Amino acid sequence: MSSQHPIGRRPGDPEVTRSAVLDGARSTFAEHGFERATIRGIAARADVDPALVLHYFGTKEQLFVAAHQLPFSPEEVAAAIFDGEIEDLGGRIARFYLSALAVPGSPAVSLLRASATHENAAEMLRTFIDLTLMGPGIETVPAPDRRFRMSLVAAHLLGVLFGRLILEIPELAGADLENIIRPLSTTFQRYLTGQV
Amino acid sequence: MSSQHPIGRRPGDPEVTRSAVLDGARSTFAEHGFERATIRGIAARADVDPALVLHYFGTKEQLFVAAHQLPFSPEEVAAAIFDGEIEDLGGRIARFYLSALAVPGSPAVSLLRASATHENAAEMLRTFIDLTLMGPGIETVPAPDRRFRMSLVAAHLLGVLFGRLILEIPELAGADLENIIRPLSTTFQRYLTGQV
Repeated sequence: MSSQHPIGRRPGDPEVTRSAVLDGARSTFAEHGFERATIRGIAARADVDPALVLHYFGTKEQLFVAAHQLPFSPEEVAAAIFDGEIEDLGGRIARFYLSALAVPGSPAVSLLRASATHENAAEMLRTFIDLTLMGPGIETVPAPDRRFRMSLVAAHLLGVLFGRLILEIPELAGADLENIIRPLSTTFQRYLTGQV
Repeated sequence: MSSQHPIGRRPGDPEVTRSAVLDGARSTFAEHGFERATIRGIAARADVDPALVLHYFGTKEQLFVAAHQLPFSPEEVAAAIFDGEIEDLGGRIARFYLSALAVPGSPAVSLLRASATHENAAEMLRTFIDLTLMGPGIETVPAPDRRFRMSLVAAHLLGVLFGRLILEIPELAGADLENIIRPLSTTFQRYLTGQV
């Protein structure tokens, strides 16, 4: 049966193939970074046809998300934060990220811990920020310096997650999430559309 | 005389040796994080015998604490940030911490790396925040919720340091410090005396 597989050079169970592609993707992204990693290179690492990689995962972005078990896809983030009035962008960003990540059992804990000590993980977190906060939707933020403006937002989000989940500063760890989302929303909106 | 030194490979003044060990410890902790740093590696970096490191500092934890004596005492921080008009408190905090810590060679690098993975270091960082930002001078911040207000400031500072020094997000790592201090000053002032 496996000899009849129409595309891949690796015969057999699709789950095995999928797992090989994910392994190949992780090591390729770690070695070359997101930008320089290619579907062709990942396919070669996994010993499968590049068409099979695309068949399973669609795009390099989606493969990146799957390989790193990220909590949400760039498309989901973009829809959640960039769809809507620019006047509420800061509030949507604060609510989306903090509701998803500033909570018990958050994947942000291991992501931040790993990023602090392993360059591979730091590269992954940088890429995730690049694909979401800095993704195509950022065009709605006024130029110039839209990436710098968004980097201030990213920094503040990182700090709240670090202070609440890693350091467990009592006033942050114990705060009602709404009491954090409110002041951050105002700050983010000023960073994105106000005077910096 | 130096050839008679009983333990270390580095001859001479104990103060010089001690200082070399502390330098080696800081760079090793910064590069590898607390867990993966070894006494052997630190000793090699300092060009001394590992036994000499233990002789001077006892344990890796004690060496870590000694190595991260920050370049200012809590009293100095309090004088720098709390002395002055309440209307400029946010600006003084942003300028003092970022000028001291958001720079090349900052002790914040190893401190954040270690805090992310080691509870002793996290406790040390929490304590440092408690002694400085949350110290006696905080009484100048309007009640109620002055500690919660200051925890938002602390979170933002942590995030800028994490994003600039650890993740090295290009827009943060490459920014002129004044361009970060300015927007943060406004944010901090609002958190401390405005509506949150």
